[in-house]
Amino acid sequence: MSTLTVLLVLDLIGIFAFALDGSLTAVRTARVDIVGVMSLGVITAIGGGIIRDVLLGVTPATFQDWRYLVTALAGATLAFFLSGQLSQLTKPILLFDAAGLSLFVVIGATKAMELGFGPLQATILGVITGVGGGTIRDVLLNRVPTVLSANSHLYAVPAALGAGFVVVVSVFGFGAGWVAVVGAVLCFVVRVLALRYRWNAPSPPGAPPL
Amino acid sequence: MSTLTVLLVLDLIGIFAFALDGSLTAVRTARVDIVGVMSLGVITAIGGGIIRDVLLGVTPATFQDWRYLVTALAGATLAFFLSGQLSQLTKPILLFDAAGLSLFVVIGATKAMELGFGPLQATILGVITGVGGGTIRDVLLNRVPTVLSANSHLYAVPAALGAGFVVVVSVFGFGAGWVAVVGAVLCFVVRVLALRYRWNAPSPPGAPPL
Amino acid sequence: MSTLTVLLVLDLIGIFAFALDGSLTAVRTARVDIVGVMSLGVITAIGGGIIRDVLLGVTPATFQDWRYLVTALAGATLAFFLSGQLSQLTKPILLFDAAGLSLFVVIGATKAMELGFGPLQATILGVITGVGGGTIRDVLLNRVPTVLSANSHLYAVPAALGAGFVVVVSVFGFGAGWVAVVGAVLCFVVRVLALRYRWNAPSPPGAPPL
Repeated sequence: MSTLTVLLVLDLIGIFAFALDGSLTAVRTARVDIVGVMSLGVITAIGGGIIRDVLLGVTPATFQDWRYLVTALAGATLAFFLSGQLSQLTKPILLFDAAGLSLFVVIGATKAMELGFGPLQATILGVITGVGGGTIRDVLLNRVPTVLSANSHLYAVPAALGAGFVVVVSVFGFGAGWVAVVGAVLCFVVRVLALRYRWNAPSPPGAPPL
Repeated sequence: MSTLTVLLVLDLIGIFAFALDGSLTAVRTARVDIVGVMSLGVITAIGGGIIRDVLLGVTPATFQDWRYLVTALAGATLAFFLSGQLSQLTKPILLFDAAGLSLFVVIGATKAMELGFGPLQATILGVITGVGGGTIRDVLLNRVPTVLSANSHLYAVPAALGAGFVVVVSVFGFGAGWVAVVGAVLCFVVRVLALRYRWNAPSPPGAPPL
Repeated sequence: MSTLTVLLVLDLIGIFAFALDGSLTAVRTARVDIVGVMSLGVITAIGGGIIRDVLLGVTPATFQDWRYLVTALAGATLAFFLSGQLSQLTKPILLFDAAGLSLFVVIGATKAMELGFGPLQATILGVITGVGGGTIRDVLLNRVPTVLSANSHLYAVPAALGAGFVVVVSVFGFGAGWVAVVGAVLCFVVRVLALRYRWNAPSPPGAPPL
């Protein structure tokens, strides 16, 4: 498969995972109807990519290729009907979320590099692609975004590692599908280890004690 | 009147209705000053159109034609001075809101079709135009957006019906001012019926009982 | 120094001040880790400019020139390590915020005028540049944005004065670095006086008594 095909497939898997994650989070934390569940699933899935594309100054991929929206709607619909079985299970939600995060950060960083943005900007845009959808979801659900909270189990750190890996390797001229896969695996493994062993990033010295 | 004139007039009426709605909602639900009342009125009125235009990749209409901003400011100013009389009346707020919603979804869907976006995307962009301003208003007022909540009395459903009607008719080649008017009336009637008879969209099977 | 250099230097000072402000506000009001402190500092610093540039239809300056991001990260890092000493001091936070606000409104208004937007739009885009970052920060921290609240001590009023001054002077053909400096000083002085003497904008007649 070409690099482009690898990236598209990873992107659609990430969208499906994030749609499940977003819809199940909505069911678990707020009193929403089918419109809320579907919207929050779709927004979680496509929000990060939309923010990235708006910042890159291009038409959001989601609005150019119908496969993104249909994949997001499929994930959200599945989550709606299975919410009775799934919504109490926090582990699958966290794993879906880690998968979506990992795939999105490498895709975001790759796209920013391809459009000629600098390494620091591309890394940040990769992280934004990964955390953007969940952040919009949390804002709409009226809670402080997971990625910012003291108990986030690193979240943004593996995202920055994955995006940074892809950017650094690209700067040295190795741009190919396997780089995206390795970057995504790196992000996923660090995120899952952080969840398993409850690692957290340091809190500011001025923070009140937990 | 030409189709373009019909759309502009409908757009300005929608902006005026949403500005009244946004400002009165602000007075009723938060401790805001004149800046807050005016800002929330204007944001409710122009927010959906701005999100749509940013996603479409065009300069927001609001910043190109002064009539949009002036109409929004007029609605917000009227709401500020009449808030003592109006803010306890929930019915007019709901009717203003239904009018703004109906007009915006058909305008958004029409604009997206004209710029060459696909039917699914145009329908979603129509709905975003309708619900976007109120969603930003609710986020700024620190509450879960009406459109997502289990007790929203359909809200997004008539929006999708109105936008979908305009899109389907356009696909078959009938694009004219009367299509926009019929789509808006369809959305308005369904929304008002849903409010009157307290229709709600189904909640997810996994949701805790009301 | 050329007008362009003056504007860049003012912009970077504003970014540094807003990054300190955003990070210290995060430490003081929520349970965030280093990622949260850094993100909220950077977002407060660059958020207003990004909203402005997205609305203007240009690539955000932050993503074109690395100096913006590095300055924002420097301010946020400093705030993180000094948060133990600084976070209880509300006065420096308010002064940093007033400085950032003053610089950003004049820069935003100037940029909008240069890109050919009308006077009303340029004034509003100036105000958005000034208040946008703090508004995103407050939304992410799950509170009603300062700029909208009844106890904001004018906030948006000096912003509109500073932006309006720059716009009106530019309309009469005087566009130069000193205009930006005078506009920023005007905004800063009115804001600090409003804080010192607890001036507030009027509340709507329909608001419940304080």
